[in-house]
Amino acid sequence: MKSRLPKVLHPIAGLSMLGHVAATVEAAVAGAATGLVIGPHMEGVTAGAARSFVQKDRLGTAHAVLQARPLLEAAEGPILVLYGDTPLIRPETLRRLVSAVTQGPAIAVLGFRAADPTGYGRLLTRDGQLTAIREERDATDEERRIDLCNSGVMAFAPGKALGLLDRIRNDNAKGEFYLTDAVALAVADGESAAIIECGEDEVLGVNTRAQLAEAEAEFQARARRAAMEEGATLVAPDTVFFSHDTKLGRDVVVEPNVVFAPGVVVEDGATIRAFSHLEGAHVSSGATVGPYARLRPGARIGESVHIGNFVEIKAATIERGAKVNHLSYVGDARVGEGANVGAGTITCNYDGFSKHVTDIGAGAFIGSNSALVAPVKIGDGAYVGSGSVITEDVATDALAIGRGRQVAKAGRARELREALGKKKGG
Amino acid sequence: MKSRLPKVLHPIAGLSMLGHVAATVEAAVAGAATGLVIGPHMEGVTAGAARSFVQKDRLGTAHAVLQARPLLEAAEGPILVLYGDTPLIRPETLRRLVSAVTQGPAIAVLGFRAADPTGYGRLLTRDGQLTAIREERDATDEERRIDLCNSGVMAFAPGKALGLLDRIRNDNAKGEFYLTDAVALAVADGESAAIIECGEDEVLGVNTRAQLAEAEAEFQARARRAAMEEGATLVAPDTVFFSHDTKLGRDVVVEPNVVFAPGVVVEDGATIRAFSHLEGAHVSSGATVGPYARLRPGARIGESVHIGNFVEIKAATIERGAKVNHLSYVGDARVGEGANVGAGTITCNYDGFSKHVTDIGAGAFIGSNSALVAPVKIGDGAYVGSGSVITEDVATDALAIGRGRQVAKAGRARELREALGKKKGG
Amino acid sequence: MKSRLPKVLHPIAGLSMLGHVAATVEAAVAGAATGLVIGPHMEGVTAGAARSFVQKDRLGTAHAVLQARPLLEAAEGPILVLYGDTPLIRPETLRRLVSAVTQGPAIAVLGFRAADPTGYGRLLTRDGQLTAIREERDATDEERRIDLCNSGVMAFAPGKALGLLDRIRNDNAKGEFYLTDAVALAVADGESAAIIECGEDEVLGVNTRAQLAEAEAEFQARARRAAMEEGATLVAPDTVFFSHDTKLGRDVVVEPNVVFAPGVVVEDGATIRAFSHLEGAHVSSGATVGPYARLRPGARIGESVHIGNFVEIKAATIERGAKVNHLSYVGDARVGEGANVGAGTITCNYDGFSKHVTDIGAGAFIGSNSALVAPVKIGDGAYVGSGSVITEDVATDALAIGRGRQVAKAGRARELREALGKKKGG
Repeated sequence: MKSRLPKVLHPIAGLSMLGHVAATVEAAVAGAATGLVIGPHMEGVTAGAARSFVQKDRLGTAHAVLQARPLLEAAEGPILVLYGDTPLIRPETLRRLVSAVTQGPAIAVLGFRAADPTGYGRLLTRDGQLTAIREERDATDEERRIDLCNSGVMAFAPGKALGLLDRIRNDNAKGEFYLTDAVALAVADGESAAIIECGEDEVLGVNTRAQLAEAEAEFQARARRAAMEEGATLVAPDTVFFSHDTKLGRDVVVEPNVVFAPGVVVEDGATIRAFSHLEGAHVSSGATVGPYARLRPGARIGESVHIGNFVEIKAATIERGAKVNHLSYVGDARVGEGANVGAGTITCNYDGFSKHVTDIGAGAFIGSNSALVAPVKIGDGAYVGSGSVITEDVATDALAIGRGRQVAKAGRARELREALGKKKGG
Repeated sequence: MKSRLPKVLHPIAGLSMLGHVAATVEAAVAGAATGLVIGPHMEGVTAGAARSFVQKDRLGTAHAVLQARPLLEAAEGPILVLYGDTPLIRPETLRRLVSAVTQGPAIAVLGFRAADPTGYGRLLTRDGQLTAIREERDATDEERRIDLCNSGVMAFAPGKALGLLDRIRNDNAKGEFYLTDAVALAVADGESAAIIECGEDEVLGVNTRAQLAEAEAEFQARARRAAMEEGATLVAPDTVFFSHDTKLGRDVVVEPNVVFAPGVVVEDGATIRAFSHLEGAHVSSGATVGPYARLRPGARIGESVHIGNFVEIKAATIERGAKVNHLSYVGDARVGEGANVGAGTITCNYDGFSKHVTDIGAGAFIGSNSALVAPVKIGDGAYVGSGSVITEDVATDALAIGRGRQVAKAGRARELREALGKKKGG
Repeated sequence: MKSRLPKVLHPIAGLSMLGHVAATVEAAVAGAATGLVIGPHMEGVTAGAARSFVQKDRLGTAHAVLQARPLLEAAEGPILVLYGDTPLIRPETLRRLVSAVTQGPAIAVLGFRAADPTGYGRLLTRDGQLTAIREERDATDEERRIDLCNSGVMAFAPGKALGLLDRIRNDNAKGEFYLTDAVALAVADGESAAIIECGEDEVLGVNTRAQLAEAEAEFQARARRAAMEEGATLVAPDTVFFSHDTKLGRDVVVEPNVVFAPGVVVEDGATIRAFSHLEGAHVSSGATVGPYARLRPGARIGESVHIGNFVEIKAATIERGAKVNHLSYVGDARVGEGANVGAGTITCNYDGFSKHVTDIGAGAFIGSNSALVAPVKIGDGAYVGSGSVITEDVATDALAIGRGRQVAKAGRARELREALGKKKGG
């Protein structure tokens, strides 16, 4: 990856690859005890509630799994072995794996039909049962023609994992303990081994930035399909980017070029217009956001609210029917029901030391290009004249103006032009 | 579709699917009398000048067409039957259908070669003539291998439609009157039936949001190709979104990520830069718009005008050579020839009750961060100082300033920092 | 192309096609003497240090090359013949061509395997050596099945070009002198002719706007792959647009929808957020730019600087750790280390006649919605109150405020509403 960030922490759709794996496990088997085996350079890496185990020496995949021995010893149910760089497996696939090892087989291996099997381990079968996993370098020509490949992911029946793993030996070229050898050991014991097949898209491994981008693209393709199936219109699906947790209601319309960063909920019937960017925001029914709107964390957009172009909303509640239509920054604020915030309005929420709150009452009117210097409260129905700097509270139904008086000098613009024109020419 | 909006009203390129069908009919046969058969839940749905007929009970496609009996009885020419959810048929295809039934055949059916014919009715032929339309469930294995499929669209020769439709019976599994039975009836009468073939892309039906997105994509692909063929440069065609009525001249350059909402005309040699959004706007020769420009309805951008980033123009005429380059809102306004509107300028066009006009004269200079409180008139060659709030008209060649006087307190910033720093620490 | 611009001047990734060819030649053979043969309508077209030669009459490709006779006569090394509308050949491909003609063959022709060879000249071979180039119209059926096609690009061994070119005749249907005839002449002389193969993507010719867009897409695909291989994360590679000279460091993260216009360098570990547009800008390590940031030429973004949404930076140095987070225009300016520029700040750098400089000291705080009227200097640690218009220098650690005083009229907003409401109703 040519990166200082550990590979499994690179994000897909706003969540690390490891986080995706953890979330998939939780979705498949809620409350499962999980362990995370990490390298010594990965200190501090965690995944939800998983216990961490450090593998100091890289002695192979079986050796890695055995670092979690306390967990293996304590386990009463099946054991699932997954990888942090394979983030796209579906929960139902994991459930099928787990289900397989509760019905007889000691092991179930997740396999896939590879479009190009070169380089993958092949799954050897007899009568539909897995007999061994053959690495490419050890495979005969006939075996190499097999396109059913090993994903590395496997499940062990209850009580079977430790007994098999402890017997794996490292008498091979690299001197490593290979997890795949567990299959042959089980079969030699007279146990059966099952294959669960999934699509190649689920087991796309990520070893380069290009593969990271492919995994992201696969995630996005799934998220777009799901959003449309649930009743959202994506005018140009390929230009809409979801996060792992984006939630869109029915009859939500999303125009081209919209980015949903994490933490966004959009209710039924809202419209997200082109070039909008939302993060940590809640958009209520019938609201219209954008084009070019940026909703930052804590933006709560009420019903039928209009948020327009070049508007940034942060940690602010915009109540039902209010409008913030143009070139504004509203942060640490409440905008009351039906209020109108004019073009170019800035809530001056930061004084260089602390953040302060701006409270705008229901039905208030904030004239364009106004600066509201927080902490400040604009009463219900109050009216702020355009171009004002408001530093003191404005009472309910009051009119407030804070701006310089206009003065004019007749003919002075012409004189300036002539003087400066002369200077430039001279 | 999981939608509260009737399916045929979902838009493609800014026009409802039904609107596309109506526009195609008008383009193919200008002035044709048209009828629209709708369901009882679709009240209020119209399509241009079409007469509406409600089909109360869903008794099949032939039954639907017969709801338009007054139109069928009045018709002297050929009858075309189309569907509101098949918006991508080309006008020339309809002309070919109409032409076919004026040259002998009683019926012409629009067929297409399906990449995967599963599920479609097949067109059975003998000696190149259509003999029947076979639904998949009734087809023999051999018939299922036919890839020439029924689009559902058909034309009837003058005077033939009613006689055939009235004889269609509903003695089938579903008890419905199928329009497709008209073919066999015509053939039994000794009439001939023709097939007009079109590409599968023309008869893509829309039943899901995903198919809606596919139809949108197909429309966009056509519009992009057409724009390039006419001499526009699209740097990244896949990122440019057209409306059904967008008009681009020659040597127009469109950078990546541009959205043309309905009603846009761009003249020869104009440049639309990245991330721009245009709707109901006219851009003249040699003008430059964007990046990040939003032109809203009524924006008339003159020759060689520059509209820059984070600028919104609404219902405003920007005259030849004028510049609005940064972070401005210009609404309900005129900006005269060669005028310069500084960064952060806001026309305060709305007072909370009504909209008012800002008129900026030729060659005027509006200093940055000014608020022009409409109604207001800035004379030709006038000069507005930066940061002004202008509430009164400014005379030709006059200088106007409206801002507070600067006061300074030496060392006060350091004191503040120390005081607040202490407070925060305390 | 339907364009007033000569075809070879149409840009790809911000550089003309001709410029790409010139850059490729320079990359392949640094310091090579180059000549440019242009049509009479292309006066003024140049390509780097190339000498220009005008071909007055269009008498064929060999005739065109011979317009550069002075260059051919002076040349001591191999001669490469390239085309201005084939901008995607790789430098290593040219090096292979040049290398081929220094090892025996008199000529080396660049060939490619065409997916659809229709219309291309075919490369005829015997024992792996090129024997002739056969135009499609003269080819036998068997020859037409050859998929190895002529790109037109060729190299001549030192001293061979003129002798061959001068013997080419125009006794053909069009009466033109074809460069391709040089191959048969060389073979007839007992010389050998080599074929160097490249991918079809390298020899994509550009004759239409659609092909221009394809060439752009191919360039972008290469640039995206290269950026990822070098250790940048492109969240959605297809939505990132590079220029010919963009430079990205390691662990640079580029979010969706970013445009790099020419002249951009981004150092290791910087983040370019969605919807950003950069041109002529330098972004230092650890800086964050966007979303919706526009960096224009001369923007120098220091380490750990934050540039936020709807912010335009032009000809300005933003020093380490400074923040310009919202809705600002900073042009012709310096923002000192750790300074904070509030939302809606505008540097008023243009007075209608000249541009002036704004200098903001280290640790200064510029309150929101302020206008800094240049030339103006804000001292280190100084504090500008929100909504100020600053026209005079502010001393180090001083506080400056320049705004109108707030006045309020109790109940006046309600009265206005009632009065105007009445008027509207009346």
